Amino acid sequence: MQPEFQEQLDTVNRELVEMTRLVGSAMNLATQSLLDADLTLAESVIAADARIDTLASDIEERCFDLISLRQPTAGDLRVVIGGLRIAASLERMGDLAEHVAKQARLRYPRLSIPQELRGTFAEMGGLAEAIVSKTGAVIATQDVSLTADIARHDEQVDRLHRDLFTIVLSPSWSHGVEAAIDVTLLSRYYERYADHAVSVTRRVVTIVTGAPYVGVSL
Amino acid sequence: MQPEFQEQLDTVNRELVEMTRLVGSAMNLATQSLLDADLTLAESVIAADARIDTLASDIEERCFDLISLRQPTAGDLRVVIGGLRIAASLERMGDLAEHVAKQARLRYPRLSIPQELRGTFAEMGGLAEAIVSKTGAVIATQDVSLTADIARHDEQVDRLHRDLFTIVLSPSWSHGVEAAIDVTLLSRYYERYADHAVSVTRRVVTIVTGAPYVGVSL
Repeated sequence: MQPEFQEQLDTVNRELVEMTRLVGSAMNLATQSLLDADLTLAESVIAADARIDTLASDIEERCFDLISLRQPTAGDLRVVIGGLRIAASLERMGDLAEHVAKQARLRYPRLSIPQELRGTFAEMGGLAEAIVSKTGAVIATQDVSLTADIARHDEQVDRLHRDLFTIVLSPSWSHGVEAAIDVTLLSRYYERYADHAVSVTRRVVTIVTGAPYVGVSL
Repeated sequence: MQPEFQEQLDTVNRELVEMTRLVGSAMNLATQSLLDADLTLAESVIAADARIDTLASDIEERCFDLISLRQPTAGDLRVVIGGLRIAASLERMGDLAEHVAKQARLRYPRLSIPQELRGTFAEMGGLAEAIVSKTGAVIATQDVSLTADIARHDEQVDRLHRDLFTIVLSPSWSHGVEAAIDVTLLSRYYERYADHAVSVTRRVVTIVTGAPYVGVSL
């Protein structure tokens, strides 16, 4: 591998890690804005999404230049194309954090979720944070042993997602249709955010081990 | 452009058009399975998604080989990378059709949607069909003038999506929480399916005109 090529690839890697930090922070703040009906916080998450989109575009252009100007070998090409796809998934995770913040804004000054579900959404937010922080570590260190933790957290998110369905559909649900829909959509945003993180880590595993990519049904 | 390169690019193009045909047929049959609570049809859509996924993988591998073996110019590279992304969007549209079919299966032998909303979902299905068939034509002919029609259909889908929210949240909604959630999720699948088609046509416009890609918030 040419030293310059490696240098540029390192830059892409650093920017991908920075993206995990930004989309992690976005989901973290979005969760807080949801739990506290905090309009200012929600607005800040919505405004900050543009920066995530720009970073994704920058990474895409850098990958494009790397392929176009450096004509990488097949192995290196897989790394760069993998980087393109990881950037697209992270960008989508930023959108999902933005969706949570928009939901908080939509119901402001009311809470978007019933008081008794705040704990569940706090837990989902915590899991999302753990997942994305470990995803960043996987990209930074290529230590694929962390993927087991990420898969476990993802299963916990899936379980909470199913639990929330059961709750809003139970005869004792007393918050009406609007709250049920809000809870369902919000829960789906967290669940898909986690799925995208799993998809990112599988891409890294593919790159590191050379094993074929196993898709995640998103 | 080398003649062999052009030939392979033509193959990618034909396969992308074939994908639009498959995901169009999937959504069409999924809509019918939803409107008629037809379990056999729903199962056939769910089973057929694997073929769409395989075709997407084939296209990705072909694009990868094209870049790796042919070392295209920057202009040709944009076309190939565009093809990669179009395949990913179409694959996702197949997943969304599968989601509709799974919803039909989940409530079988009951209808998943109240009788009075069958017309709205039939309309959404018709619009999805028109959109994807025109998306196929845009890829096949690179006639970007069709994108105006596609954008108009997409707006109609968005309007129906908003109307459905209004309906399930109105005080006269008498079908309970479960049906409200089903309608909301289903409506979202159609809305996102249309958004992905718009995103595909914008990719083609980028390739044909060289203008920068304008993202769709999915």
